[in-house]
Amino acid sequence: MHSNDATSNIEQVEQRMLDLVLQGTGEAGKAAAYHFSAGGSRVRALLALQAARALALRDHEAIAIATACELLHNASLVHDDLQDRDVVRRGRDAVWHRYGEAAAICVGDLLLSAAYAALAGTGSHAAALMARMHQRVAAVIGGQCDDIAMQGRTLDSLAAYEQVAQGKSGPLLILPLELALALAGRTDAIATAAEAGSLFAIGYQIADDLEDVERDALNEELNIVAVLAAAGEPQPLACARELAVTRFRQAHAAASALPSNCGALLAEQALRRSAALSAVLESA
Amino acid sequence: MHSNDATSNIEQVEQRMLDLVLQGTGEAGKAAAYHFSAGGSRVRALLALQAARALALRDHEAIAIATACELLHNASLVHDDLQDRDVVRRGRDAVWHRYGEAAAICVGDLLLSAAYAALAGTGSHAAALMARMHQRVAAVIGGQCDDIAMQGRTLDSLAAYEQVAQGKSGPLLILPLELALALAGRTDAIATAAEAGSLFAIGYQIADDLEDVERDALNEELNIVAVLAAAGEPQPLACARELAVTRFRQAHAAASALPSNCGALLAEQALRRSAALSAVLESA
Repeated sequence: MHSNDATSNIEQVEQRMLDLVLQGTGEAGKAAAYHFSAGGSRVRALLALQAARALALRDHEAIAIATACELLHNASLVHDDLQDRDVVRRGRDAVWHRYGEAAAICVGDLLLSAAYAALAGTGSHAAALMARMHQRVAAVIGGQCDDIAMQGRTLDSLAAYEQVAQGKSGPLLILPLELALALAGRTDAIATAAEAGSLFAIGYQIADDLEDVERDALNEELNIVAVLAAAGEPQPLACARELAVTRFRQAHAAASALPSNCGALLAEQALRRSAALSAVLESA
Repeated sequence: MHSNDATSNIEQVEQRMLDLVLQGTGEAGKAAAYHFSAGGSRVRALLALQAARALALRDHEAIAIATACELLHNASLVHDDLQDRDVVRRGRDAVWHRYGEAAAICVGDLLLSAAYAALAGTGSHAAALMARMHQRVAAVIGGQCDDIAMQGRTLDSLAAYEQVAQGKSGPLLILPLELALALAGRTDAIATAAEAGSLFAIGYQIADDLEDVERDALNEELNIVAVLAAAGEPQPLACARELAVTRFRQAHAAASALPSNCGALLAEQALRRSAALSAVLESA
């Protein structure tokens, strides 16, 4: 059964996310539901749903992988906010700030466990997909650790910066495409999906850094502008913006090269972001 | 292929645990390896290996479920130590105390993810097993949250105490038997395994509380002796000890009733512990 109704599928993903975390009794499930209720773009779920549709996967497979990817992302948000002591998430109190640090650890654990449980919906494919998922999760945890280790240190190598930026969000951007491609038997295209996801992640991180230049300087957090300045770049702001545009354009090209146009949504997002940054460059 | 060599199987479990966490780059994998190197009883792995052998499962299935259960338990230790600010684990610095709070969150996440990846070794059974595992993980997270919420509160109900005690460690004691039974097609016996694991968990928690009466009173942590005293019991220490003996004996009976003697190790542990507590009672 194939449905073209993306709205109904994303609603099923939301419902599945909630069902899986409410298997936990008491406070942790409630706090997870609070976290979901603040909304969010659900980009990773949408990337999985679009890829699944393009590759003609079955609805229950599409929903399983979309739910898994979205739950993983939210697990990382809950734990990252606690690690970084960020008090606001989506305009509201971050989970740790509202429910306490210990509860936030529990909530992130619950979301991570639920992500794997979501994959059970892929039946006989679950074993292969969970092994892939663990590799990306291990990579993203490595990236988060590297980022923490960078705090307070000055980095003057662009290559090292891109390595950290890619590690922080690349794996969970690659995963929706990777799981869809694996289910479709197109493991040959996963390397291209990984390239697209990694390039997008670098562009995304630079754009994020450009929003937070002052705050990151104050908190001694890694920021591309400081890296470029330390590397001797005379115009670090413009240079960072140009680099982000380049990475988004490269991500667009890689995502567009995926089979059956299954990277269309990632390609579209990359193009939109590179256009927005180019506009800033031209008006400067 | 069936091996009767429990030593070689537990060594394979140790190796698999390490392989799965070293897929993470950098600090998190190293800190996980540090945590493993401190040793531990590996009781949950042994429970799974014994049950698997009794139920004539294949070696790779036995190792997969034993690795998954042991990784889950260690994930909970790393996060619990951080939540409870316990500085020592197995005679050495707890992970958070050595590597920092943010790193300990990453390490626990890595162990939890690796636990699911271990189940991939069960091939076509993975989907069913991961759904079961998530239910137990959600229950244990609920139990941990309840325990945190109890801090500083006085509880005067034995039933409520047993509920918390059971929730804290019961699910991860049930899981090794449950996964083995599910693989053997004996889901009919899982309710009995759950009874055995829950009763053992209550006995275990009471025995643990008896070791920590003064410390728990100081830290306003939940302790059976305080609960019984608040409930008006004139001899709370002796009463707690008798209750632990009863629960271990009931756990022994339930574990002994499992098919093919697959609960033999849990039954043996329950008997040993009830005997040790009885000896204290008689010498008093």
